[in-house]
Amino acid sequence: MSGNTLGLLFTVTTFGESHGPAIGAVVDGCPPGMSLSEADLQIDLDRRKPGTSRHVTQRKEEDKVEILSGVFEGKTTGAPIGLLIRNTDQRSQDYGDILQTFRPGHADYAYHHKYGLRDPRGGGRSSARLTAPVVAAAAIAKKWLREQYGTEFYGFMSQLGEIEIPFIDVSHIEANPFFAANNEVIPQLETYMDELRKAGDSCGARIEVRARNAPVGLGEPLFDKLDADIAHAMMGINAVKGVEIGAGFKSVAQKGSEHGDELFADGFATNNAGGTLGGISTGQDLRVAIAIKPTSSIMSPKQSIDLQGKPITVQTKGRHDPCVGIRATPIAEAMLALVIMDHALRNRAQCGDVKLDLKPIPAVRPGAKRD
Amino acid sequence: MSGNTLGLLFTVTTFGESHGPAIGAVVDGCPPGMSLSEADLQIDLDRRKPGTSRHVTQRKEEDKVEILSGVFEGKTTGAPIGLLIRNTDQRSQDYGDILQTFRPGHADYAYHHKYGLRDPRGGGRSSARLTAPVVAAAAIAKKWLREQYGTEFYGFMSQLGEIEIPFIDVSHIEANPFFAANNEVIPQLETYMDELRKAGDSCGARIEVRARNAPVGLGEPLFDKLDADIAHAMMGINAVKGVEIGAGFKSVAQKGSEHGDELFADGFATNNAGGTLGGISTGQDLRVAIAIKPTSSIMSPKQSIDLQGKPITVQTKGRHDPCVGIRATPIAEAMLALVIMDHALRNRAQCGDVKLDLKPIPAVRPGAKRD
Amino acid sequence: MSGNTLGLLFTVTTFGESHGPAIGAVVDGCPPGMSLSEADLQIDLDRRKPGTSRHVTQRKEEDKVEILSGVFEGKTTGAPIGLLIRNTDQRSQDYGDILQTFRPGHADYAYHHKYGLRDPRGGGRSSARLTAPVVAAAAIAKKWLREQYGTEFYGFMSQLGEIEIPFIDVSHIEANPFFAANNEVIPQLETYMDELRKAGDSCGARIEVRARNAPVGLGEPLFDKLDADIAHAMMGINAVKGVEIGAGFKSVAQKGSEHGDELFADGFATNNAGGTLGGISTGQDLRVAIAIKPTSSIMSPKQSIDLQGKPITVQTKGRHDPCVGIRATPIAEAMLALVIMDHALRNRAQCGDVKLDLKPIPAVRPGAKRD
Amino acid sequence: MSGNTLGLLFTVTTFGESHGPAIGAVVDGCPPGMSLSEADLQIDLDRRKPGTSRHVTQRKEEDKVEILSGVFEGKTTGAPIGLLIRNTDQRSQDYGDILQTFRPGHADYAYHHKYGLRDPRGGGRSSARLTAPVVAAAAIAKKWLREQYGTEFYGFMSQLGEIEIPFIDVSHIEANPFFAANNEVIPQLETYMDELRKAGDSCGARIEVRARNAPVGLGEPLFDKLDADIAHAMMGINAVKGVEIGAGFKSVAQKGSEHGDELFADGFATNNAGGTLGGISTGQDLRVAIAIKPTSSIMSPKQSIDLQGKPITVQTKGRHDPCVGIRATPIAEAMLALVIMDHALRNRAQCGDVKLDLKPIPAVRPGAKRD
Repeated sequence: MSGNTLGLLFTVTTFGESHGPAIGAVVDGCPPGMSLSEADLQIDLDRRKPGTSRHVTQRKEEDKVEILSGVFEGKTTGAPIGLLIRNTDQRSQDYGDILQTFRPGHADYAYHHKYGLRDPRGGGRSSARLTAPVVAAAAIAKKWLREQYGTEFYGFMSQLGEIEIPFIDVSHIEANPFFAANNEVIPQLETYMDELRKAGDSCGARIEVRARNAPVGLGEPLFDKLDADIAHAMMGINAVKGVEIGAGFKSVAQKGSEHGDELFADGFATNNAGGTLGGISTGQDLRVAIAIKPTSSIMSPKQSIDLQGKPITVQTKGRHDPCVGIRATPIAEAMLALVIMDHALRNRAQCGDVKLDLKPIPAVRPGAKRD
Repeated sequence: MSGNTLGLLFTVTTFGESHGPAIGAVVDGCPPGMSLSEADLQIDLDRRKPGTSRHVTQRKEEDKVEILSGVFEGKTTGAPIGLLIRNTDQRSQDYGDILQTFRPGHADYAYHHKYGLRDPRGGGRSSARLTAPVVAAAAIAKKWLREQYGTEFYGFMSQLGEIEIPFIDVSHIEANPFFAANNEVIPQLETYMDELRKAGDSCGARIEVRARNAPVGLGEPLFDKLDADIAHAMMGINAVKGVEIGAGFKSVAQKGSEHGDELFADGFATNNAGGTLGGISTGQDLRVAIAIKPTSSIMSPKQSIDLQGKPITVQTKGRHDPCVGIRATPIAEAMLALVIMDHALRNRAQCGDVKLDLKPIPAVRPGAKRD
Repeated sequence: MSGNTLGLLFTVTTFGESHGPAIGAVVDGCPPGMSLSEADLQIDLDRRKPGTSRHVTQRKEEDKVEILSGVFEGKTTGAPIGLLIRNTDQRSQDYGDILQTFRPGHADYAYHHKYGLRDPRGGGRSSARLTAPVVAAAAIAKKWLREQYGTEFYGFMSQLGEIEIPFIDVSHIEANPFFAANNEVIPQLETYMDELRKAGDSCGARIEVRARNAPVGLGEPLFDKLDADIAHAMMGINAVKGVEIGAGFKSVAQKGSEHGDELFADGFATNNAGGTLGGISTGQDLRVAIAIKPTSSIMSPKQSIDLQGKPITVQTKGRHDPCVGIRATPIAEAMLALVIMDHALRNRAQCGDVKLDLKPIPAVRPGAKRD
Repeated sequence: MSGNTLGLLFTVTTFGESHGPAIGAVVDGCPPGMSLSEADLQIDLDRRKPGTSRHVTQRKEEDKVEILSGVFEGKTTGAPIGLLIRNTDQRSQDYGDILQTFRPGHADYAYHHKYGLRDPRGGGRSSARLTAPVVAAAAIAKKWLREQYGTEFYGFMSQLGEIEIPFIDVSHIEANPFFAANNEVIPQLETYMDELRKAGDSCGARIEVRARNAPVGLGEPLFDKLDADIAHAMMGINAVKGVEIGAGFKSVAQKGSEHGDELFADGFATNNAGGTLGGISTGQDLRVAIAIKPTSSIMSPKQSIDLQGKPITVQTKGRHDPCVGIRATPIAEAMLALVIMDHALRNRAQCGDVKLDLKPIPAVRPGAKRD
């Protein structure tokens, strides 16, 4: 495959470019009999949508998704679910320059050398716009996981540029445009973004996502460990340069006596593991962090070359996110949900009839800290 | 699949447990006509082997690999290459306790809840011993990539526990048991390890790997980006908790004006990207870092539960690595090589006949820094 | 996967039901740089279209395909090609009875027991209408194979019910609604069909397809032999009950001295093999035959049970093909083209750089028979 | 993949050549907790073994299989099961001629043009010997299906060359070297074979296989229909040129009023469908027939060319089966079992929680004919 399909059993195959007629996805492997309507998908699509605050791209897209198949009288049938989102705001007339230019930090140079040509309109296939069908597809997975296992997903920004954002409470997340679990830091973030925009520059972000009540036993050794597939999905999001599970890079300086999470009959004491042991989920919260690089579309000039190899100066004009990380939270949640969904189906394929005397212990001991 | 196969076109399917009769792999998709003998595989196997210094597990394994198929008169035939490594040092008699116990930080609990039973001998399937066939398989990929493109791989330890290890020179790496690119720091590392062993504790490590002269144009948008597949492979290595490409988590606090690597006719100026743009290789060095957690097999006591859910104290006896990261460098190199090999074949499948006027620019400008 | 994707490298993922809002496909893995427009796809879609003669279903469908992605300024970009066909003639109001009934020979019973529910409108997902996106996708493969290798596809009906149809000439095929390579037999076929329709019954058909100038060396031992993948694709067409390659079931009664095709410097003498040896293409014509069962939608009454297990009598009303085989020729060609395309890419992935002294010999010796 | 893996969830990856040191397979995806020992695999291996009658190749092979992994204390663990069979009778010294020759009807020509080189010893990778690991792997699937669903497999020869073999009773099958369900025809078959051998010629065979009590609901529309995957598996067996499901090619001349199997509360009346509707299993017996071509290794001379394109005469010497079909029955059973196993896992992945009021009806009505 050419990389446009995610998953083995619950598969999402996307198509489309930023400024083509439409984008969409085929979601295959959804269990039959689940209620599903377009409204179920629209919630997360709206959370991801551009144009919702002054800090994100002002592109106007309704992002209305149409379900083309796989649902009959409001229930999934087990047939593939076709999803279609028409592009409405295309403005593709003025891409001429971009086609002659390799913008530093952009996919231009790589696409050119791979394919020999590329669709320059809004980034074409490499645009973050292509996360929209993924978010829609993941809403199906989220719904099924919630109904089957009570699994819940949430994410938040824990760092914007140099500013670390302490976790206060989940309830703050949806109340600000940054997905910060911290309503006190918002003015500081607003000021930071405004200055960045004025300077014609951009910054990165650190996003964290969690899955609570994910089933125990998901993940396939050796190579398709749950955390390995999470890393694959996360690193596949535009602009991501790093992925951590649990203690992540902090575990390098930890001692074994500190890192290993102790087990008690009333639950796990800590969660350095981030929800997996040996690549298999333990029932603890899945804890994932990603690093998002500063967007390369900036107004400050950068040196590059053109299609003939001649030196040029590149400077971005027009609408652009100074921090693509601001909209990345629902996307990272979506990726996590898709991986868990796929592995839930894989697990019941192979281990569907395993019976056990010892039930899983709680994810956290009473009183244990959890973000 | 149950996760024991890596790759789409150049596939490695492994089998075996730490203390079973044998471990091995089937390597499928190797192009025909390449010279290959067991000696080609033994080099990296020997670099990964336990028992080579006092800082690593003293298990005695010859790790002699036998090629069972796919080679005729010294050349690969295009048929699958069967690899077999007999386990010689098995000591499996005394696993009784382990079978009743969920060791904190180990795969025991997760395997038990997934499969309902597990092979406790030396960690069974979850043992790091299973990286041996992967290293052997990757030696095939490395050889092909070297012959076709001049691709070279190297890796080194950049942090051991709290000690950061500055990069001095590639030539130092193979001259010490830590794979440190720095011969000055060795006494300090030795002391650190000796104290750790005395304290019955363990520590983590940070490993970096590089691929130089990897082909341009590798990686498949949307989901199977080269960096996404690298993250998948790396996070699949035992004990890995984090993966970075290029600037990694440092990119969060970078500005766009700093992060985007400028292009000149005589090469790239910097390599924050770590060798990929839009998930496709640019010809720059592929730069990957991984975080390895401290091993959970320690002599200090930890609390846990047994198979009946009763509280117990766990304390490891016998041979164990106080830092599994010490032997991880050849494994991380192997994973990187396997991903690049797979994508080299995927790329020539889809884009094999692309012709371009503009040749790729050099990976680095003359005089630019490169570790 | 849930079976809605065909191919490993050139993949076609379809979605849609007979009477939903739309059907379509995502075609992934198409090499970049090929000219492509909707007109290229419409030719085969029109050959497959219902309502083109009195012998096929009178459903009115324009079957106009829209390319949603993967093409920029008239060239494929290497990105997935989204294809959309809106359903215009839906008449879905009166499916109530069907939902309560398991029609003999139909997918109803099997879908019910698999999924617990089904979309009954026009057969839902199991309708032959779903071959339309496959035919459109295959037109892309056909074009690429023609441009790269000069590969040509054709198919014809060689038996309608009890009537065998001797092969006269390829030029006759498109000049009659039966795809018969024989213009003399048409009146007989017309009479046969008229009588069948009057009797409220249906009949089967035997369809043959050929690929000429397919590349040598396609097919992957052991399991994904070219003929194995052809058999998979063909048996996946609605109503197909048998597949033959070359001499097929006739080879059972052949002697080895007769069956083995002799090789001469000026070409192969015969083609009992049907174009493959050891599952790998030889450059001979690929010769495939399929058996299509009589459609189960007939006006004669049949016994069955309803959803409660009660006995009922089933009798089809309304428009239906008395022989679905009549429209099957372009579908079988499409399937053959998709398999060859996929293997062409697979072959250049693994064996792309094989160089040989001996060029392939011609497919047929001068003067040898060929249908 | 390069085609050496069968299945999506229950996968068999084989390696090895006819005269290399060993052949084997990795079986991945086996559910945990099933008792398994080498004795379970040996039964079918012995049924397939050469040298068991004067009508089959006299190669002496013990075909003793060793389980290398995936089993602990007699139970499967969910880890991949490594299977190894050492080649003992190798006689590889005298292959020189074969390497210079393209034997008509053999894989030589195709392998040469695909790979540029080949292992000529005993046919190398294209030898029927490679069915041994497949048969061993399938014994695992058979055992699991029998324990879970009571599924049973049997096969028989229904035609040897020109001689049709009427089905008398299943009990006859294992009592003769032909797997004929007919003990009366054996003398006739013996004579036929003796004459063939004297004439230095070979013949084909028709083999039928059945699965009884296969689960209902297996098979994935659109492309991975159960019958499509069966066709793929069967056509992948050496020398197979045709596959039929149920009425097969006979359905071409059937009327719809005859073909469609009627349903009654006490069972299906007939089984023209061969156990699938819409590509999904109905609980009826799965009925499959395959055509096996006459082996190309004959003592009668045939014309061909050598590696330089020069004309030569080819004549086989030494041990060879005059009818490879004689040993094909256990292989065809094995393939059928592997496909059903894979789909059983796929089905419980997607549809594992479907609950139904109406239970499946019996496979056959009381008194209905069944072979």
